[in-house]
Amino acid sequence: MILLDGKKTASNIKDEIALKVKSLKNKGKKVPHLAAIIVGNDGASLTYVNAKVKDCKQVGFDSTLIKLSKEITEQELLSEIDKLNKNNDIDGFIVQLPLPKHINEQNVIMAIHPDKDVDGFHPTNVGKMALNLPTFISATPFGILELLGRYKVKTEGKHVVVIGRSHIVGSPMSILLSQKRTVGNSTVTLTHSRTKNLKEITLQADIIVAALGIPEFLTADMVKDNVTVIDVGITRVDDTTKKNGYRLAGDVKFDEVSKKCAFITPVPGGVGPMTRAMLLKNTLLARINKE
Amino acid sequence: MILLDGKKTASNIKDEIALKVKSLKNKGKKVPHLAAIIVGNDGASLTYVNAKVKDCKQVGFDSTLIKLSKEITEQELLSEIDKLNKNNDIDGFIVQLPLPKHINEQNVIMAIHPDKDVDGFHPTNVGKMALNLPTFISATPFGILELLGRYKVKTEGKHVVVIGRSHIVGSPMSILLSQKRTVGNSTVTLTHSRTKNLKEITLQADIIVAALGIPEFLTADMVKDNVTVIDVGITRVDDTTKKNGYRLAGDVKFDEVSKKCAFITPVPGGVGPMTRAMLLKNTLLARINKE
Repeated sequence: MILLDGKKTASNIKDEIALKVKSLKNKGKKVPHLAAIIVGNDGASLTYVNAKVKDCKQVGFDSTLIKLSKEITEQELLSEIDKLNKNNDIDGFIVQLPLPKHINEQNVIMAIHPDKDVDGFHPTNVGKMALNLPTFISATPFGILELLGRYKVKTEGKHVVVIGRSHIVGSPMSILLSQKRTVGNSTVTLTHSRTKNLKEITLQADIIVAALGIPEFLTADMVKDNVTVIDVGITRVDDTTKKNGYRLAGDVKFDEVSKKCAFITPVPGGVGPMTRAMLLKNTLLARINKE
Repeated sequence: MILLDGKKTASNIKDEIALKVKSLKNKGKKVPHLAAIIVGNDGASLTYVNAKVKDCKQVGFDSTLIKLSKEITEQELLSEIDKLNKNNDIDGFIVQLPLPKHINEQNVIMAIHPDKDVDGFHPTNVGKMALNLPTFISATPFGILELLGRYKVKTEGKHVVVIGRSHIVGSPMSILLSQKRTVGNSTVTLTHSRTKNLKEITLQADIIVAALGIPEFLTADMVKDNVTVIDVGITRVDDTTKKNGYRLAGDVKFDEVSKKCAFITPVPGGVGPMTRAMLLKNTLLARINKE
């Protein structure tokens, strides 16, 4: 069993990006600038967005964090977005989700200019992704492609089973892996809450992407030998043996499933760090696209 | 075995649209106006586009056919498109594909305003489709959904196997049928030229969408009893017993496969007429969206 080490791979990617930034600087060129908008004081969201700013610093990007009150109106938020769209110094930006309930997330996503939408959530970018055109692929699916690619996991002709059809992971993952691309050309089955006989299907899989958000859902009896498992889940589970009272659990029962695996991602340290690294990669791309 | 009669269903849909047009007229409202651009004199393309104009007349739409020389430059074509984008009288328009080789089809598709893109080929509309947002679903997948829906073919929890990953049929079909929608909620496997053991997979299918463009590819030994088969293929095959020297063949060996089917589309008279009807439905939608 080979561990798909997202932490180490993300660190390598960040080193590569940092080198690229140095080279831009040496040529007297502008370095990438990522802005992030956060609305309100949700603890988890703040943690995520602070991590993104820290990542920027680490690779030499400029970054701007815009903290807005949770009382802001949708119109006010849209006008902040408009400013970032028009600000030539900002190469890409994100609006940290979720947003307070009085704000329509879809309107917000639609307001971000596709050329600055480094999260890859705008319909135009989702459409380009689905059409296999150059675009910002959203960070989690992009990170999974990159991880599979760097570990040379063979995907062509393999049967991939994706569990979970979210717009952020499951659905794009199923689209991408079935396309003609280096990491792709797989036969993909997309499964979800309405799927019958899931176990019959996962037992046929050469590669499983578990992205349903139910801790330790995928068990050893559901997979065949030599399977590759990508665990996208990350849920806090009560654990009294831990100092902070919880542990982070993936969607895969790692201890038992990993014994049957050719490759498997750990949680934490698998898909998570890759997601963070790919946001940087998209921001670099946004900068380069403008050259 | 029940025949999914696309010809009859399309005729019903056209009657419904014609009624809707009458009601618009009675209210003193504008009727939908479809424009079609055709470049060059390709026989098949002319046949298709003339049929679309005829369909418009039949349901009471206004229509405009713009015939351009095959020598036209890409820039000239783009400026024609720009005129249609700006022409308030035109609710929706299409550019008949394929285009001469010196014109980049993707540039042309990108130039059509998404709100007038009744073919549903613009990335923004493809993205909205993938995100299950209201949009123009391209005519062939839309027609298949409609046909399944009107015949009340159960799709929820069913295993759908799509053969062929084209951007026009196979890929959107796989996306749509796996979504939370009335005709949808299926477990979908998307197969293609790199798929191994295709027969093993099709034998598990409750519903098969054959869209690979190889005449009579799907044979009886590849399907289980009570399967539903949607045949998207339509290829001219030499046939000396016919006056014109050919017959139209689907991707399914109809005579033998139909015996095992719960439902099956004929070729011709299945998916084809539905595709034509759904272009009208999208044009009506474009008109209504502007009200």
